[in-house]
Amino acid sequence: MKFTRWMVAAFALISMGTAADAQTKWENLFNGKNLRGWTKLNGEAEYRVEDGAIVGISKMNTPNTFLATKKQYGDFILEFEFKIDEGLNSGVQFRSLSDKDYQDGRVHGYQFEIDPSKRAWTGGIYDEARSGWRYSLADAASRKAFKPGEWNKARVEAIGSRIRTWVNGVPCANLLDDQTASGFIALQVHAIGDAKQEGKQVCWRNIRIATEGLEQEVYPETESAEEVNHLPNILSEKEKKEGWKLLWDGKTSDGWRGARLDKFPDKGWVMEDGILKVKKSDGRESANGGDIVTIKRYRNFMLKVDFRLTKGANSGVKYFVNTDLNKGGEGSSIGCEFQILDDLRHPDAKLGVKGNRRLGSLYDLIPAPEDKPYREGFNTALVIVKGNHVEHWLNGVKLLEYERNNQMWTALVNYSKYKVWPNFGNAEWGNILLQDHGDEVWYQNIKIKELP
Amino acid sequence: MKFTRWMVAAFALISMGTAADAQTKWENLFNGKNLRGWTKLNGEAEYRVEDGAIVGISKMNTPNTFLATKKQYGDFILEFEFKIDEGLNSGVQFRSLSDKDYQDGRVHGYQFEIDPSKRAWTGGIYDEARSGWRYSLADAASRKAFKPGEWNKARVEAIGSRIRTWVNGVPCANLLDDQTASGFIALQVHAIGDAKQEGKQVCWRNIRIATEGLEQEVYPETESAEEVNHLPNILSEKEKKEGWKLLWDGKTSDGWRGARLDKFPDKGWVMEDGILKVKKSDGRESANGGDIVTIKRYRNFMLKVDFRLTKGANSGVKYFVNTDLNKGGEGSSIGCEFQILDDLRHPDAKLGVKGNRRLGSLYDLIPAPEDKPYREGFNTALVIVKGNHVEHWLNGVKLLEYERNNQMWTALVNYSKYKVWPNFGNAEWGNILLQDHGDEVWYQNIKIKELP
Repeated sequence: MKFTRWMVAAFALISMGTAADAQTKWENLFNGKNLRGWTKLNGEAEYRVEDGAIVGISKMNTPNTFLATKKQYGDFILEFEFKIDEGLNSGVQFRSLSDKDYQDGRVHGYQFEIDPSKRAWTGGIYDEARSGWRYSLADAASRKAFKPGEWNKARVEAIGSRIRTWVNGVPCANLLDDQTASGFIALQVHAIGDAKQEGKQVCWRNIRIATEGLEQEVYPETESAEEVNHLPNILSEKEKKEGWKLLWDGKTSDGWRGARLDKFPDKGWVMEDGILKVKKSDGRESANGGDIVTIKRYRNFMLKVDFRLTKGANSGVKYFVNTDLNKGGEGSSIGCEFQILDDLRHPDAKLGVKGNRRLGSLYDLIPAPEDKPYREGFNTALVIVKGNHVEHWLNGVKLLEYERNNQMWTALVNYSKYKVWPNFGNAEWGNILLQDHGDEVWYQNIKIKELP
Repeated sequence: MKFTRWMVAAFALISMGTAADAQTKWENLFNGKNLRGWTKLNGEAEYRVEDGAIVGISKMNTPNTFLATKKQYGDFILEFEFKIDEGLNSGVQFRSLSDKDYQDGRVHGYQFEIDPSKRAWTGGIYDEARSGWRYSLADAASRKAFKPGEWNKARVEAIGSRIRTWVNGVPCANLLDDQTASGFIALQVHAIGDAKQEGKQVCWRNIRIATEGLEQEVYPETESAEEVNHLPNILSEKEKKEGWKLLWDGKTSDGWRGARLDKFPDKGWVMEDGILKVKKSDGRESANGGDIVTIKRYRNFMLKVDFRLTKGANSGVKYFVNTDLNKGGEGSSIGCEFQILDDLRHPDAKLGVKGNRRLGSLYDLIPAPEDKPYREGFNTALVIVKGNHVEHWLNGVKLLEYERNNQMWTALVNYSKYKVWPNFGNAEWGNILLQDHGDEVWYQNIKIKELP
């Protein structure tokens, strides 16, 4: 059968009708009287029912305690009210798990953060006992949404891989993440280390969830909570619309070659589970598989690269690379380098001048600040090039900026190890390079957005 | 007798009346028929009278030849027409002299330049056989005023120390200079080095001069020819109006002190004939009289300093100086330095990194270009500071510019010998310093204009 235009149109009408007809069914997770349907996990903190609310009471010498639904939920819209005493931390788990196989039943998974501290990340998303912060709140408006000492209204939409939160109607998190598709809801009483906090309370009430007819209930898209995309090597619709492109497809070497080769290196680099790994060899520069570069060259762009260091590792992301320079010589290809380094363990962190060979630095030229938001696991490097203006960012924080093609730039280069390369760093365009420095480093989510 | 206020006022009225009444009297310097009133000096080029014009004819193997008036002129307005063959150079001397005592009678003094070459400085002022260019033409409009191969109209106003020129009605030079108050007028046939130019002609006609009733004949002031002030340690009215101030009064140490002293040094510095001289000692840094600094400190400014090097000399002009730094140590006070150096002869010119210790460089940080308009005799250094933006100029040409208080600046400083001084070059203000490096260097016309 061949679809005709009118058939497609009719189909669309039918689907719309179906969607519009599906009733949103809200289910109360808490009956207002007792804890039927809930079960306590991990810790020993107490949960009581008082005045139609679940009250969690903080307790010393017990790990985080969770009051979890017995049922599992996949796609849903969850709403609840909460109130928390000053000095505590709490949260509401969703799509969360407790398996014997994982840390002996430790509750892990997404958490709607409740954070009455000065940091004020209530509504952010923390990945409990797994990958840590997935969505922190930088935005002033969302950080002000939480009202200390009062009842607050929370909303979580978890539909497919898109997870969004609201606090008192203010959009907070807007996350794309597909680690877990389904799991329980759980109310956290956080462990405490200070006896003064013992007996303090966090309360929840009017906890309701919808799992059907979600389309009509979904809140409209908003610009005020910026999307964070944690889907591995997949662009979001928004990223596509904004002009982002994957520099690496997550599977093949398409678009890449060895910096000194016409093809991708036979050894030294592997692609597995959506991760591009430069393998450990002997720690020398470009001596195993060698650096790899994009086949295409770039002029003005935003380049995002997620990287994960192994202990003591050295690598780097270079731009304005000219693979014709140093083609026959030893060592890496020539270009400006966003240094990737385990500052704590690699000796290069102590060489150079005032830290200009540490993580995030413009290698051998401009140091990144010592105090920077590096974390275990994956980090996001961002390089922005707009003509002569260049910026290095790490995990959303600007580390440094500089202007090239001027006298100060030349004066600085002439002091550095790049002085032997004429006109270093002043190229209009160049390849993007990932460095093989003989240490294992993982890369993923390599994305570029070309700028005018 | 003591002048009273009304007497001064009456005097002024009488002078004004006299000036207004005085008739401008034009005198023809050339009678159109023969060379009566003129005399040939120095060279052997031929001057003829043809069709009511004086014709000078270029000749090999003779120095510059001059046809000079027998009479001397002080304040005057001079007009003439001229026409010149391509390939020649010429000019009209005024307030010029030929004395046995000076280079055996060599004609010297101001010259209205006639320059049909591509440089096109016709109307500029050259100080023949004395100090060279006093007013070159940078301005496009004045350089286009001369018409090659045609009769051109010239005008020179020399009244007091102000000397102005016009070519075909276009303002060219606007000079303040008081080297000579009076002398002859003379028509130059320039020496030639190329036999192909022999026999080429330069012609003058309608040469007239006014020496009385000049006030009413003077052309209005114009912005199009920028004033150049060569009066030693004297501000022009225009400079005063623009906010320039003398940093050195030409005679005393007022406003200055030793960089490590509460008073002016007892030795090492002398003031004579309007020149501030740092004396020769042993070539060491600040080891004789020591550096001197302004008592006042400056934030945003234009600083002009005329300097004259002796052979192999080293000195410097520093700004953002903090005399509390390095107060007890050896060597110079700490600040950003406009390097003053005899690049040809002082060893420091070959040290540092790619010329960053040569004349005009930001010492040890940013090199001035190798090709720069340095000349024997006095040169003018200009430093412009506008917040974090700083420029070094030499003789009207920008050598370098930089931005301080940013990451590139810090990275550059950290590579240089200034790395030991915390926050080097980032001060909001500082003293101005002249460096004693144990070599004789002359300074004059030290002027500053503070900027908002």
